Amino acid sequence: MVKKFIIAIDLGGTNLKCALLDSRLKIKARSYFNTRSFDNKPKLIQGIIQSVESFMVNHRLNRSAVLGIGIGMPGPVDTRKGLVHFLPNIPGWKEVGLKKILEHKTKLPVFIDNDAKLMALAEYKCGAAKKYKNALCLTLGTGVGGGLIIDGALYRGPDNAAGEVGHLIINEEGLVCGCGGRGCLETYIGNNHIIREARKLFGPGITLEEVSALAGKKNAKAINFWNQVGEKLGVAVSTLVNVLNLEAVVIGGGVSHAGNALFDSVRQTVRSRAMRVQGQRVKILKAKLGVDAGIIGAGYLVKES
Amino acid sequence: MVKKFIIAIDLGGTNLKCALLDSRLKIKARSYFNTRSFDNKPKLIQGIIQSVESFMVNHRLNRSAVLGIGIGMPGPVDTRKGLVHFLPNIPGWKEVGLKKILEHKTKLPVFIDNDAKLMALAEYKCGAAKKYKNALCLTLGTGVGGGLIIDGALYRGPDNAAGEVGHLIINEEGLVCGCGGRGCLETYIGNNHIIREARKLFGPGITLEEVSALAGKKNAKAINFWNQVGEKLGVAVSTLVNVLNLEAVVIGGGVSHAGNALFDSVRQTVRSRAMRVQGQRVKILKAKLGVDAGIIGAGYLVKES
Repeated sequence: MVKKFIIAIDLGGTNLKCALLDSRLKIKARSYFNTRSFDNKPKLIQGIIQSVESFMVNHRLNRSAVLGIGIGMPGPVDTRKGLVHFLPNIPGWKEVGLKKILEHKTKLPVFIDNDAKLMALAEYKCGAAKKYKNALCLTLGTGVGGGLIIDGALYRGPDNAAGEVGHLIINEEGLVCGCGGRGCLETYIGNNHIIREARKLFGPGITLEEVSALAGKKNAKAINFWNQVGEKLGVAVSTLVNVLNLEAVVIGGGVSHAGNALFDSVRQTVRSRAMRVQGQRVKILKAKLGVDAGIIGAGYLVKES
Repeated sequence: MVKKFIIAIDLGGTNLKCALLDSRLKIKARSYFNTRSFDNKPKLIQGIIQSVESFMVNHRLNRSAVLGIGIGMPGPVDTRKGLVHFLPNIPGWKEVGLKKILEHKTKLPVFIDNDAKLMALAEYKCGAAKKYKNALCLTLGTGVGGGLIIDGALYRGPDNAAGEVGHLIINEEGLVCGCGGRGCLETYIGNNHIIREARKLFGPGITLEEVSALAGKKNAKAINFWNQVGEKLGVAVSTLVNVLNLEAVVIGGGVSHAGNALFDSVRQTVRSRAMRVQGQRVKILKAKLGVDAGIIGAGYLVKES
């Protein structure tokens, strides 16, 4: 029997998203869970296994019809060994051999990778970075994640740790960062930081979605707020554009919904700060695949393995 | 007849270095000129042609015995078209089709590239970066140049403009840079800046070589001076190590002779600022090929073309 299906999973700090994909990576079925409803690591792993099993049962799939399971994890991963080093936003995960555990339980091939890398892979294969062989895909959220496409392939580095754009130092004298460094991009534009700034400006109850909506309605204070976030991001992008001569920088994640107030400011900062040739070459683009990027990327991971 | 020889040229702001290489890139003969002794572009091109001709005559070489001419240029180059965009330290060069001009005059194949990229290629092929498939090679001088080795090949980017590590922004509010940006690494550790700082500390006549010699003799003020240069460089290296998960960073050029006072400080800064996995992986190494790196790299450029 031809193996036609892939089970793709995107584990986030908030949601566990699962999907059944066909061989062209079209989504045939979905399931959603709140990650926090699984109190601990064994329960979360059990949740993943049950999602896989319910796709198999509900769609009457034999194991032989499934190419494999692809999983994006919100933290550093050794993709060759199938090991999760740790998850900054989900406690209790340290050097977990997830591939081995899941292959034993499901009897299916399992492939795991870092979620930001899988989003980059998806945006390159069928999203905003499709035409660009040298691209950086950024996801803006609590953390600032990234994946690099170099000469037409996802670039991993020797420890699968490449792409940590959130830990690009934009001010050597800046605030101490969770990574142990100082002045990292994430300390300026990670959600935890910008929500604090937003609450100083707009009052204690406001959400980032609301600040984005205000900017959409031409509220000057909100536009100015996103301009300043864009400027910080633009400094980091300028550095990477100078060093990597990128064709495209694709920006996704919650904060990317701030729209023009953010994107125009990133573009203007890159125009004024990056070197001429590099600055003229690069396109600053909004991610296309939205919340499904992680799922689609997990599908490609299985397909290409 | 087997093509056994390569003519390699390294054009710098100060010296025009020429060499005859055999097929294993061993240097068989050399010639040196002061770049400034050629007043203008036509004279400099004529100087290059004469150097080529004198190797041919003195070593009784037929054109058929020469694989080609490789040239490293101190500025941005379109290596496919053989075009020199401009040379920051040699006036009068703007969009010069050097490959075409020289091929017409010498009737030999000509290959040109940026000098920092050729040094990186040489250090990767037979120097300090030999074992490392993901490496950055830096040259510290008036400018701060760089070349990136990614997955075992020189990474150029779409405009052959990748590797401009001198224009990595380490302080968004820093000094205006010659590139039009602000707070670039080069504004902190380029020779023009550090010689000014050195003269404030050690008196108006001092050279950087003398400050290096003082550091070698354990002069505390000189060691502190190089420590501070190393700290700035270490911040930039930390950023690149986080983003690119590099195996090695190779440092060459005049300033690299400052020795341990510089290298220890770069290593310590990376240890304290880079992320754990990336920081533990990377080796900070001194370049091995010294002043011949550009020549050897130009040889590889011809050999691989």
